[in-house]
Amino acid sequence: MATLPEPLPLRYSTPEEWVEAAMQDPLALLDDHAHLERKAASNALELLSRWPDPDPPEGWEAVMTGVARDEAEHLAIVTRLLTRRGGRLSKHHKNPDAAALRALVRKGRGTEELVDRLMISALIEARSCERFELLGRLCPDPRLAKLYRALWASEAGHYRVFLRMARRLLSRRRVEARWSELLDEEARIIAAQPPGPRMHSGAPPVGSPRS
Amino acid sequence: MATLPEPLPLRYSTPEEWVEAAMQDPLALLDDHAHLERKAASNALELLSRWPDPDPPEGWEAVMTGVARDEAEHLAIVTRLLTRRGGRLSKHHKNPDAAALRALVRKGRGTEELVDRLMISALIEARSCERFELLGRLCPDPRLAKLYRALWASEAGHYRVFLRMARRLLSRRRVEARWSELLDEEARIIAAQPPGPRMHSGAPPVGSPRS
Repeated sequence: MATLPEPLPLRYSTPEEWVEAAMQDPLALLDDHAHLERKAASNALELLSRWPDPDPPEGWEAVMTGVARDEAEHLAIVTRLLTRRGGRLSKHHKNPDAAALRALVRKGRGTEELVDRLMISALIEARSCERFELLGRLCPDPRLAKLYRALWASEAGHYRVFLRMARRLLSRRRVEARWSELLDEEARIIAAQPPGPRMHSGAPPVGSPRS
Repeated sequence: MATLPEPLPLRYSTPEEWVEAAMQDPLALLDDHAHLERKAASNALELLSRWPDPDPPEGWEAVMTGVARDEAEHLAIVTRLLTRRGGRLSKHHKNPDAAALRALVRKGRGTEELVDRLMISALIEARSCERFELLGRLCPDPRLAKLYRALWASEAGHYRVFLRMARRLLSRRRVEARWSELLDEEARIIAAQPPGPRMHSGAPPVGSPRS
């Protein structure tokens, strides 16, 4: 299962320094991560019934239910690790990067709106996957590093299945043009995030003092 | 895993005739069932962040993430069976019994509202469990009977964990009194449902002609 996936298409590469900054509060990182998994599971369950009429594209149910199942399982694993280490899930959670991405959805535009939602789901998955790879390789806590490597292998396919569904809804040309626009937007948004113990936080400024 | 659970506490026992009526359209039954699993997964994900302040009761995260994981897995299994048999998931779905139960929630009442939501989740799980037992025993389609037996074993514990969380929020006396009221309401609501290929449909009238 852990064969090397193709390189991620992302247009901002997180520097390795991000890991040290994110790992300064492992419980906060696990909490943020649990909320991301929760939102990813809810998102897939919501998309499941949101295809354009009359019928869902081939494979729609399998993709959405498969992602929901995987994310709900990851949520249970991450939350168990959080609580076993003495943390609790926080009640309220903010995802400024996801909120900025969702603001780009072309609302009220039918199929285009849905394509945007699929692409934003793909971008969030791809960015998580990039962060899992970094954490799996560089996280100094062996138990956490093992978790992140397992999740990286499991999540590497998710961004592709969302894109595959988008390609079944609009012409290849329109899908690729919009994907390129949104890849640029995602790179801009993630680079502007403040650093901190969050999965989608920004990298610390170059030359910033290390703790 | 398939040890016999304690008897369900439900106050209306579905007659065996229900199975034949529900099985008259197996694809419609699978579709309805998939939507129930989808809603159960979404409900657990939503309850996960809805404890009364300041802290969740002991075990809250484990219960809600465990139920969400199980229901999302069941959703994937049921949907795969539906599509392999040539069905598609319907876009819109009505749950008149769940809607009638949810109307009983004491809204705006803080902890009492949450206790009601937990109990209604428990009632829906318990009723599904009763129906899985009947279908697992009497469904004439061997593949489906096997599915229902597997789900019965997996779901038998869910109603109890929701009740356990309710008992951590209010005094035993208040929880038992409300649970008894809601058991009566659920029996009344389910008995009044029209028959049909739905997991929570009513039984056909006694003496009705068989097809």
